Amino acid sequence: MAKDFPTRAENYAQWYNDLVIKADLAENSAVRGCMVIKPYGYAIWEKMQAALDKMFKDTGHMNAYFPLFIPKSFFSREASHVEGFAKECAVVTHYRLKSAPDGSGVVVDEDAKLDEELIIRPTSETIIWDTYRNWIQSYRDLPLLINQWANVVRWEMRTRLFLRTTEFLWQEGHTAHATSQEAIEETEIILGIYADFAEKWMAIPVLKGFKSPNERFAGAVETYCIEALMQDGKALQAGTSHFLGQNFAKAFDVKFLNRNNELDYVWATSWGVSTRLVGGLIMAHSDDNGLVLPPKLAPIQVVIIPIYKKPEQFAAIADKAAQIKTALEKKGISVKFDDRDSFTPGWKFNEYEFKGVPVRLAIGPRDLENDTVEVARRDTLEKAVYQMTDIENKVANLLDNIQENMYQKALAFRENNTHQVDTWEEFCNTLENKGGFLLAHWDGTSETEQIIKEETKATIRVIPLDAKPEAGKCIYTGHPSKQRVVFARAY
Amino acid sequence: MAKDFPTRAENYAQWYNDLVIKADLAENSAVRGCMVIKPYGYAIWEKMQAALDKMFKDTGHMNAYFPLFIPKSFFSREASHVEGFAKECAVVTHYRLKSAPDGSGVVVDEDAKLDEELIIRPTSETIIWDTYRNWIQSYRDLPLLINQWANVVRWEMRTRLFLRTTEFLWQEGHTAHATSQEAIEETEIILGIYADFAEKWMAIPVLKGFKSPNERFAGAVETYCIEALMQDGKALQAGTSHFLGQNFAKAFDVKFLNRNNELDYVWATSWGVSTRLVGGLIMAHSDDNGLVLPPKLAPIQVVIIPIYKKPEQFAAIADKAAQIKTALEKKGISVKFDDRDSFTPGWKFNEYEFKGVPVRLAIGPRDLENDTVEVARRDTLEKAVYQMTDIENKVANLLDNIQENMYQKALAFRENNTHQVDTWEEFCNTLENKGGFLLAHWDGTSETEQIIKEETKATIRVIPLDAKPEAGKCIYTGHPSKQRVVFARAY
Repeated sequence: MAKDFPTRAENYAQWYNDLVIKADLAENSAVRGCMVIKPYGYAIWEKMQAALDKMFKDTGHMNAYFPLFIPKSFFSREASHVEGFAKECAVVTHYRLKSAPDGSGVVVDEDAKLDEELIIRPTSETIIWDTYRNWIQSYRDLPLLINQWANVVRWEMRTRLFLRTTEFLWQEGHTAHATSQEAIEETEIILGIYADFAEKWMAIPVLKGFKSPNERFAGAVETYCIEALMQDGKALQAGTSHFLGQNFAKAFDVKFLNRNNELDYVWATSWGVSTRLVGGLIMAHSDDNGLVLPPKLAPIQVVIIPIYKKPEQFAAIADKAAQIKTALEKKGISVKFDDRDSFTPGWKFNEYEFKGVPVRLAIGPRDLENDTVEVARRDTLEKAVYQMTDIENKVANLLDNIQENMYQKALAFRENNTHQVDTWEEFCNTLENKGGFLLAHWDGTSETEQIIKEETKATIRVIPLDAKPEAGKCIYTGHPSKQRVVFARAY
Repeated sequence: MAKDFPTRAENYAQWYNDLVIKADLAENSAVRGCMVIKPYGYAIWEKMQAALDKMFKDTGHMNAYFPLFIPKSFFSREASHVEGFAKECAVVTHYRLKSAPDGSGVVVDEDAKLDEELIIRPTSETIIWDTYRNWIQSYRDLPLLINQWANVVRWEMRTRLFLRTTEFLWQEGHTAHATSQEAIEETEIILGIYADFAEKWMAIPVLKGFKSPNERFAGAVETYCIEALMQDGKALQAGTSHFLGQNFAKAFDVKFLNRNNELDYVWATSWGVSTRLVGGLIMAHSDDNGLVLPPKLAPIQVVIIPIYKKPEQFAAIADKAAQIKTALEKKGISVKFDDRDSFTPGWKFNEYEFKGVPVRLAIGPRDLENDTVEVARRDTLEKAVYQMTDIENKVANLLDNIQENMYQKALAFRENNTHQVDTWEEFCNTLENKGGFLLAHWDGTSETEQIIKEETKATIRVIPLDAKPEAGKCIYTGHPSKQRVVFARAY
């Protein structure tokens, strides 16, 4: 495995891009802005999906599937929604090709023009609320707790593998409720699920809070989010949960009879996370040697590599490896025994280090004699020799330990890169020289946020849920502020 | 649950459509030809996905994801492929909307016209083989065994829920091999998986074999298929596995160094099943009382309904129901305890019968006294009283029994509706009066098949793999034939 790519310090953006490609996670496709997710990268996404899907189902949500296409007119129904999404839509205008008259291939058949253009969904609120109108008559039909796993398209001008692609995969939850309070509770339950998933599965600490109005989802009354810090000091929005009020119910005329037998508009939420999380996972943990994957999301958790010179040694090692593999798999651990004889152990060590496999076991002739195995952990690159006794529990504990250690390391990084700043000069200097999360006072206006963004490229990432009230002055205007908010440059 | 829909005998097509809608499986969306898959229908698809995905992974396949969009020019590369798919494509021509000058909504921004139109994938051979070119250099890179779960779009003029929709969900496998023989073996392995899945999970017997050239996939050298018989005597193609030869490797210039160190084109297969299987499942088993679902694919396998008059009776029944639920869930059985007090037991009985839940348990005060439970099975509508002892194994056995009984019933139906015919008159009469699979001699020409199709709407569904050689005369032309093939009208 060639390490011919820059270190994080040399060129973080290039490091990330090269890592994604060389570790076989994804690559750019023939279609501008769209990626191919390769099997190793897709396996990470599948593990994410499985964990999230279970969390959604455990909280009463069901999956469904709505059309890829949205009639163009649906977008105009919700004013701020169309404003937010109309600029980046793939538009289907025809439904047939025909042979080119000159025999050079196929051309669009102009006779097959749609009466109304169809938009490839950038998000599905409009088509779903148009559908919900027929599903909801009374409070007895509520709450409606639905999620879908789907692809969406937003026509991005500047794309980066996983982090920002024209087509991406995601889940989008769309729930309907009888009261404002219930919808807000749902929004918060989902925020909690997202934060738990980020911290317990991805081993990434996140800040929970609200978006400022400038950063709110187009059509939302309130956008909750989780925000993570990457190793280059830039923030990554890792999940959003929107309280939509009655905006979409009004736009699509979804009314219900409430418990008082009065007609009212339905209350809504929507929420989503996407394949961008795979990008965040890589950027948060990986190092100059390659990927570092948290055990809970690693496609291969343990690799076993035989070390031998003579073929007759191999049989005994393979036998021992098979025993270990069986014992680990019984505990639900995914194990690969790499018995290929076309690669040296050293090559394989590099390969799995580069691919971020959390634990590597090596077994040589001496290990057979001593009933031991050499154990290397990817996160710290430390090695140890374990006695074989109870090896499955030792490895299981090590995996738990790695998961926890990765989280603690990321948490320490975030703490070391969170700065309280009180003046404009301090704000600009810290942003330029250190990056990270800047806790600063803000006067609460969109105008000020916009100016700060234009001057520094930093935005308000999150207004923390647990922020303490603290009187202060806006770093830019000096106007009064009641609490600090979190600024950062972001992906 | 209202049974205001026709019986199968009265109007099979209407029975099917009403059943799908009233049982909350799916409905038509605001977009012509596209359906909304509702949670109960999607839960069946999820069970199908889980079973198939495991079968694919157990045979060495990995999942990946390729773009939704295919550049138009890619289609022209493989001549028969473009011929087969270009007529039914959704075409993306623009990437932006803008506000209408008259303020009436949004219109397509003509300044945002794509240089080359993008086609929504109707199937992904072209984009995938364009990608494989960079993945395959040597025989060491082969075989490449990849599957993707995705949505595809084929612009259908006449659609039916699940059976034929403009957008549908499917899996498409795309494998690459070093030799023709290996690729053919892969095609057959997948055919075997599809047949196993149909028979063991869907409880539907299938014929395995080849398609005639007329019915072959556009771009394939040979199309293998499984073919099932529905209750109205029409056939349903339930899965196809294509040997593509070197057609796509040649079209996309995918060469590799073989073991003899010679450059050669790569050999290919592709294969898929789709949400159409959900339609087949319904049409094969359901009856005039509603859905009948095989236990292995039923979202709810067992429902428990309490029967009581006084509230104090409910507590003891609920306690017993909870015990049963826990015991069944330990055996991996999905159970719903319907404790809603807003519906009568009779209403619930109808509801779950209509929804096809395989086993219904009812517990009343007398059952508490006698330590019994009333057990009803959906497939035969038979009832029995079970002693509580070992209830979880009794119910598990009953579920197995239902699964097997549904298969045997479908097999007997197929046998009773498979007819050997030897003359044109017999062919036409049987087709008209009985339907089903017609085993008939055919002269092997596309012309004859085409004429038969035009005159009778019957096509060759499958040339069975296990057909015995048998000399005969073509039912239409009288020309010599070496074996019988299977004709039917089909979905």
